[in-house]
Amino acid sequence: MSADHEAGPMSSLVTFGETMLRLSPPPGGRLSRVDRLDVHVGGAESNVAVAAAALGTDAAWLSALPESPLGRRVAHALRGEGVEPLVTWTDEGRVGTYYYEPGGKPRGRRVVYDREGTPIRSLDPGDVHSEPLRGAELFLTSGITPALSAQAAATTGALLETASDAGTTTALDVNYRSKLWSPAEARDTLEGLFPAVDVLFVAERDAREVLDAEGDARAIAHSLAAAHGFETVVVTRGEAGALAVDDGTVHERGAVETDTVDPVGSGDAFVGGYLARRLDGAAVPAALSWGVATAALKRTVAGDAATVTAEEVRRVVDSDATGDIDR
Amino acid sequence: MSADHEAGPMSSLVTFGETMLRLSPPPGGRLSRVDRLDVHVGGAESNVAVAAAALGTDAAWLSALPESPLGRRVAHALRGEGVEPLVTWTDEGRVGTYYYEPGGKPRGRRVVYDREGTPIRSLDPGDVHSEPLRGAELFLTSGITPALSAQAAATTGALLETASDAGTTTALDVNYRSKLWSPAEARDTLEGLFPAVDVLFVAERDAREVLDAEGDARAIAHSLAAAHGFETVVVTRGEAGALAVDDGTVHERGAVETDTVDPVGSGDAFVGGYLARRLDGAAVPAALSWGVATAALKRTVAGDAATVTAEEVRRVVDSDATGDIDR
Amino acid sequence: MSADHEAGPMSSLVTFGETMLRLSPPPGGRLSRVDRLDVHVGGAESNVAVAAAALGTDAAWLSALPESPLGRRVAHALRGEGVEPLVTWTDEGRVGTYYYEPGGKPRGRRVVYDREGTPIRSLDPGDVHSEPLRGAELFLTSGITPALSAQAAATTGALLETASDAGTTTALDVNYRSKLWSPAEARDTLEGLFPAVDVLFVAERDAREVLDAEGDARAIAHSLAAAHGFETVVVTRGEAGALAVDDGTVHERGAVETDTVDPVGSGDAFVGGYLARRLDGAAVPAALSWGVATAALKRTVAGDAATVTAEEVRRVVDSDATGDIDR
Amino acid sequence: MSADHEAGPMSSLVTFGETMLRLSPPPGGRLSRVDRLDVHVGGAESNVAVAAAALGTDAAWLSALPESPLGRRVAHALRGEGVEPLVTWTDEGRVGTYYYEPGGKPRGRRVVYDREGTPIRSLDPGDVHSEPLRGAELFLTSGITPALSAQAAATTGALLETASDAGTTTALDVNYRSKLWSPAEARDTLEGLFPAVDVLFVAERDAREVLDAEGDARAIAHSLAAAHGFETVVVTRGEAGALAVDDGTVHERGAVETDTVDPVGSGDAFVGGYLARRLDGAAVPAALSWGVATAALKRTVAGDAATVTAEEVRRVVDSDATGDIDR
Amino acid sequence: MSADHEAGPMSSLVTFGETMLRLSPPPGGRLSRVDRLDVHVGGAESNVAVAAAALGTDAAWLSALPESPLGRRVAHALRGEGVEPLVTWTDEGRVGTYYYEPGGKPRGRRVVYDREGTPIRSLDPGDVHSEPLRGAELFLTSGITPALSAQAAATTGALLETASDAGTTTALDVNYRSKLWSPAEARDTLEGLFPAVDVLFVAERDAREVLDAEGDARAIAHSLAAAHGFETVVVTRGEAGALAVDDGTVHERGAVETDTVDPVGSGDAFVGGYLARRLDGAAVPAALSWGVATAALKRTVAGDAATVTAEEVRRVVDSDATGDIDR
Amino acid sequence: MSADHEAGPMSSLVTFGETMLRLSPPPGGRLSRVDRLDVHVGGAESNVAVAAAALGTDAAWLSALPESPLGRRVAHALRGEGVEPLVTWTDEGRVGTYYYEPGGKPRGRRVVYDREGTPIRSLDPGDVHSEPLRGAELFLTSGITPALSAQAAATTGALLETASDAGTTTALDVNYRSKLWSPAEARDTLEGLFPAVDVLFVAERDAREVLDAEGDARAIAHSLAAAHGFETVVVTRGEAGALAVDDGTVHERGAVETDTVDPVGSGDAFVGGYLARRLDGAAVPAALSWGVATAALKRTVAGDAATVTAEEVRRVVDSDATGDIDR
Repeated sequence: MSADHEAGPMSSLVTFGETMLRLSPPPGGRLSRVDRLDVHVGGAESNVAVAAAALGTDAAWLSALPESPLGRRVAHALRGEGVEPLVTWTDEGRVGTYYYEPGGKPRGRRVVYDREGTPIRSLDPGDVHSEPLRGAELFLTSGITPALSAQAAATTGALLETASDAGTTTALDVNYRSKLWSPAEARDTLEGLFPAVDVLFVAERDAREVLDAEGDARAIAHSLAAAHGFETVVVTRGEAGALAVDDGTVHERGAVETDTVDPVGSGDAFVGGYLARRLDGAAVPAALSWGVATAALKRTVAGDAATVTAEEVRRVVDSDATGDIDR
Repeated sequence: MSADHEAGPMSSLVTFGETMLRLSPPPGGRLSRVDRLDVHVGGAESNVAVAAAALGTDAAWLSALPESPLGRRVAHALRGEGVEPLVTWTDEGRVGTYYYEPGGKPRGRRVVYDREGTPIRSLDPGDVHSEPLRGAELFLTSGITPALSAQAAATTGALLETASDAGTTTALDVNYRSKLWSPAEARDTLEGLFPAVDVLFVAERDAREVLDAEGDARAIAHSLAAAHGFETVVVTRGEAGALAVDDGTVHERGAVETDTVDPVGSGDAFVGGYLARRLDGAAVPAALSWGVATAALKRTVAGDAATVTAEEVRRVVDSDATGDIDR
Repeated sequence: MSADHEAGPMSSLVTFGETMLRLSPPPGGRLSRVDRLDVHVGGAESNVAVAAAALGTDAAWLSALPESPLGRRVAHALRGEGVEPLVTWTDEGRVGTYYYEPGGKPRGRRVVYDREGTPIRSLDPGDVHSEPLRGAELFLTSGITPALSAQAAATTGALLETASDAGTTTALDVNYRSKLWSPAEARDTLEGLFPAVDVLFVAERDAREVLDAEGDARAIAHSLAAAHGFETVVVTRGEAGALAVDDGTVHERGAVETDTVDPVGSGDAFVGGYLARRLDGAAVPAALSWGVATAALKRTVAGDAATVTAEEVRRVVDSDATGDIDR
Repeated sequence: MSADHEAGPMSSLVTFGETMLRLSPPPGGRLSRVDRLDVHVGGAESNVAVAAAALGTDAAWLSALPESPLGRRVAHALRGEGVEPLVTWTDEGRVGTYYYEPGGKPRGRRVVYDREGTPIRSLDPGDVHSEPLRGAELFLTSGITPALSAQAAATTGALLETASDAGTTTALDVNYRSKLWSPAEARDTLEGLFPAVDVLFVAERDAREVLDAEGDARAIAHSLAAAHGFETVVVTRGEAGALAVDDGTVHERGAVETDTVDPVGSGDAFVGGYLARRLDGAAVPAALSWGVATAALKRTVAGDAATVTAEEVRRVVDSDATGDIDR
Repeated sequence: MSADHEAGPMSSLVTFGETMLRLSPPPGGRLSRVDRLDVHVGGAESNVAVAAAALGTDAAWLSALPESPLGRRVAHALRGEGVEPLVTWTDEGRVGTYYYEPGGKPRGRRVVYDREGTPIRSLDPGDVHSEPLRGAELFLTSGITPALSAQAAATTGALLETASDAGTTTALDVNYRSKLWSPAEARDTLEGLFPAVDVLFVAERDAREVLDAEGDARAIAHSLAAAHGFETVVVTRGEAGALAVDDGTVHERGAVETDTVDPVGSGDAFVGGYLARRLDGAAVPAALSWGVATAALKRTVAGDAATVTAEEVRRVVDSDATGDIDR
Repeated sequence: MSADHEAGPMSSLVTFGETMLRLSPPPGGRLSRVDRLDVHVGGAESNVAVAAAALGTDAAWLSALPESPLGRRVAHALRGEGVEPLVTWTDEGRVGTYYYEPGGKPRGRRVVYDREGTPIRSLDPGDVHSEPLRGAELFLTSGITPALSAQAAATTGALLETASDAGTTTALDVNYRSKLWSPAEARDTLEGLFPAVDVLFVAERDAREVLDAEGDARAIAHSLAAAHGFETVVVTRGEAGALAVDDGTVHERGAVETDTVDPVGSGDAFVGGYLARRLDGAAVPAALSWGVATAALKRTVAGDAATVTAEEVRRVVDSDATGDIDR
């Protein structure tokens, strides 16, 4: 294994995490019968980078991939979206895949993860190019990464430290995955990382079930900020929008009505939209509006990536999206 | 014509009827312009067998097919779904097809049947392997089969007698098809079959329009049971669920909220789900719940077949289907 | 350039305008990422002709196309729909295309026009076969055609005069396109054409924003009829149906509930349905009902063309469309 | 049943025969497993009309179809190709279909016909609009039509007589189908029709196996012309081209090298190309060249129809087809 | 883990090995860019069972799969092909996948295996239902299975012993995979299994490179038979056909000319065709002919499975496959 | 119009030219009938950059695009392939498209260009970021760019001067397009550019027909080098490989046998492969080998882009491409 990744300019935003191939049947199809699969590329942290890049942020994604056509498939997708792939290419390991079967009520959506044996799980901090972290304005990872393996958790911690030491703002999106670990395991590990984290993103449900927070969203945000000394805590509430406590002040934004085509990745789109505006100098309320709008637009698009434009997000933020044909 | 069908172990459930190829255009497409057709395999009685097999019942399907790639297409599909095809292969005749054009309001769905000349129409009782009927726990056919031809009606009657004589429970799903016969013709023929039928499935509308039943669903079930001595009468009520009179007691179950992708075959899925549970020893109320849940799940899946699992049905029955992504 | 178009019998309805290839991504896809495009053929005036032809009207479409596989693609589509293409084939110029990206709330639908350099823009009245106009019962064009170029506006005017002089009823659908001209430019040009127009179709919004009409739909229709001496003014109101002032009397029709698959071309379908009935001798109220029903059915079908049948429209008009499967 | 077909102008070429939907799996797919079918429209006589229309001939097709979306599908396809469908629409009967499975060596191509019960089989001469036959320059049918049923044979004979009596040149393409009748039956019936036939098209193999002709292609043509008094006999020889005896003179043309995508309909394309040139006034040698070139081009195109242009055929005839990209 | 597999009747042929999902891009597509994947199901030993079942053999396949939609996808495919899946369903592990990228000269075909972590690798002989082995006529596995893991090698050995002890003929197809082990490792392990093997299938190249055989195919077969006491040794020679030494006598069969659509699985189709005939009582020469013909037909079909019929194979064997359309 | 393009690191290779969307029907389909189009992105100069980037070169592409989803589609594709798009985004103009219809013998391939009105045609040297040219090692453009418009020719000349003045090696691929200009016009314009060109790529046919060169490929290369003082002249000869005169020495390389799926862009792949090796320090003979191998691999892949890897090219160069499955 060698950190033989590609050189690039300094990015404002660097994210770190695993990205997979998503394989899904056509609408109404079942994985247990499927003859054709649509391929998308997705991972919480690269999704954030894609959304931010779509809105103008210089973004890079730090990870490991096997040197194979499938590893290149992932890098190709991110590069196309304008995200610099800072990849540790490996001889061993496989590309994670996940099978996603959409399904309406009462079936529900189904995800079959097939992500064992991926190289990020055995990635040593020394294998990662930590240099870009030092030049970046913000470093983001999620609670999925440390859940992958003990090694991945250690590397996540080391990278957060590196960034923090270099004066780079650090952010973590809790993103609890019950198929990877238990709430107790998650809480233990994440609380170990929190001292090096400046900005926390957390879904209201995860805050309750994993971090044992109590009360309404506002109370949750305040108590988490207080308990761990976060600069900012952003609580996402699905259909109910999002709320942030920033330096003690609460900001709130309701959700936008959407015709959902594909909900996967909308939480990441929120984070990407929020960060793009923050990195652009906007205040928290404006960033919340952009996050919510980016998430809503994502839901109208197939795939994990928020393939949107700043102009589209601005139109939603300005309530100028009537759904009419513009001609 | 020779009853040269495949051998197999005894099945709990044997169904008898015609199965066709379903050809449908992509969403928004019109048959009168179509360039591509999706192929599914469906028939009321084999749909019942598929649903029951999906839930763990040993199921077989008795029918006739021409020896051709299209005949094999039908058998292949059922075999894949775990249903034993007990087929009388013929040199003559064609595979029935039906063209299905989905369409929302105000267009409505359109079905063009192309089912003349199929071998089941000239199938003599002597051509059918009646042996499996004798070992089965339950034999089901529908009102579609006797509607196909006088010969098919005679064979349906003979098979019901055979099963009944052997102590196999017999069931009939009225399934009135206005394109095959008039209500009066249907009533005459079906009433001739009723003496050999133990369990009747009937849609509320068919009960009124074909069987001249009156009153609400409850009254209908009671009066049909009384008039023809059925052990059980199950009245299906579409969006309003289903109701059964079993040995004089009424059981009822409301429908489940569904995001419908393809409604075709949901009535058959109900019957399959109901029978699977009954054959598994469950009481009527539990069977109704499983029938309704299987039907609801079917509506989320493209094609005539209820490609569901027992676990999925159980989750719906247990009200544990939130529509959330399970990850 | 030579008016070397195809001969044909006299048509009741002749329309004049530009028709394009429509290229659209699959559902949930984005033009900025697209790998496959569905091809449809559409243009306001040919859409009207297609809808009318579908309902039994002898219809022709007058236009110019380059002699190329793409030009032939357009003619092939219209011919298939039963519309006679009266085409001036040219050596120069291109086929107009437009890219259509469907998208639900809050994204909205997006149209990217790519219609510069089409031969209809430089079409001289002398290049057009004006003969069929003289034998037709009704000649229709739209406000899009004169918006294409000064030459196209002049030719539109000349054709309206020709038709009017020959005793052919003339109709114009305002169809304002903000990407082609400003409201003021549109009003100037259209008002120059109005003296030769008998029947005006106008969306309520266009009436206000382009023609400076005021008041409710009824007032708009009355004032436009009075101001320009139209025989009939039909005001379309989207979800609220349509209203006509005909010889001073007001007729109104509410919209039909629809499950929309593709809204493009539904306004043209309305006009086609309305005209088909009028040309068939029906009174205005019946024509309004057919227009509204044709538009509703169009919305259930992919593509710009109203590939419906008279029987389907009649069922909707007769409120006999229950959405049930007819089998 | 009523001969309620559409009016149209007089056509130079009128053909009579059955046209079907062709359903085929994607390359490498098997009918016995297929999930998707491509739809094409084809029939020997309408294929001839399509090829001739593509090359500029006014062509019409005489047949019967059921009034259904599938019947309209057939008429829509032919109308799009510029062929006037002179259809007797019926309430009864079905649209013929055939399933076509392409397959290379050693599998071979497979056709499954599903053409029973089509309305042309019970079409009475009185149900057919014989008027266009009288104004046409040439009337063509094939040996498939009389093979469909005794009634179809009688109607074929009556139409040939009608055309012949009106001074319309008559042509018959032998087109022997072993799945419809035996060589002896075919010979008997066809020889009954020959007295009313002016031009005979026959594959060399059919001439030998059905018509008992002997010797080489030249001898076959001479002997058939002599035996039945044909004005012209055209013998097609597959890869070896075609040969005609016309008024006692022999003309020959070798085949053109082709990269075959779909061979179905290439014989019909030959006839259409030949007739288009003859009807345009060309001599037999030129017509043979056009026939061979049209057939070769057809083989490069998916589907039964020769969707070619006169310019393309001319380029092949002029040996100006190098296979290079023209840019 | 529990051997909770499905009951079934005794099969003549039982095979044991891993079966995977095959994911492949459309023709000309690259895995490193792919947006859609076609799904097939394949594994050397199940491919053999499918081919034999297609030709009439009662066949079963012994393996392990995780209880997941993807595991069910595999079982569904085999069941559809008429092969009884005798599956040990597990809670742990994944379904193996392999990505297959077809490519002509000079690119070559590319296979990316993703088969780590599959449950067959940790399958204990006690987890396998060994009962069917005892009643079968022939048990087949391949050199791929013992290459998967030490545990899989041990279980393979145990099953061969079980079969052998029960008087069931045992067969092994060497099927060397360089991505799984080295020639030396393969030789060591396979030679340990040979004493329990009656019939050996081996590609000529594998015989040389793995088993160190020398001389021409004939010499190879003789020396392997002599060295290990095989009853029969079948040497496959790709384009040059196949050769068998059976009880000291040599039989040979040349290959059949094919238009290859998909070569994957043709070796397995050979074995399946050969065994089907042998189990049907045919002598070795006839079995070789059927093997070669089945392999040739497989190459004309997309996917790993030989979806052929006995009639098709017989036609090829009888040299009755002309490639002509049969109509 | 503003040169508001994206910043990036210095690239070794910068190319300048127009890139279009390529729209093509599925195999066997015709543009005049097409319902679906596959979208690829291609342009001679960006194709060269893609091929070089695939082989490891830092490559950038200089051009103009309208700010629209289609303009972004082009940039997205190139970015995905690892080429930095140095785009002048404009408010006016359209994205060029070309329709490509593949077709075997005798039809030939057909290209319909639709490239009028693109912003590169009115691009002023001042609108272009000339900075990257100065830092690059090599600047390439083709004879297509100056053929687009007089302004484009002037800008091409200015950029060649800029590069030349900065010491950047300059290369020009003649790439004659008969649909854009005559041989005489091309010769005049190109000869005006030649003084600033160091390396010339020219197809043997273009050398003869456009540049009036005579003799065999060797003579052509010598005479062109002599006449215009080129450092290197590379003559490409299609199936016969390529030949270079470099500093007076001749090097030659035969073509590689290929199974062609899509020939478009293979000439550009040659240039990209050649330059990648040259920029990597290789001598001309090795570069020729890489060019020829890259071109051959391109022909096995759908689309204009050489989506290959250095390892694949190396295998072909090393004659290690056997077409066998590597597993």
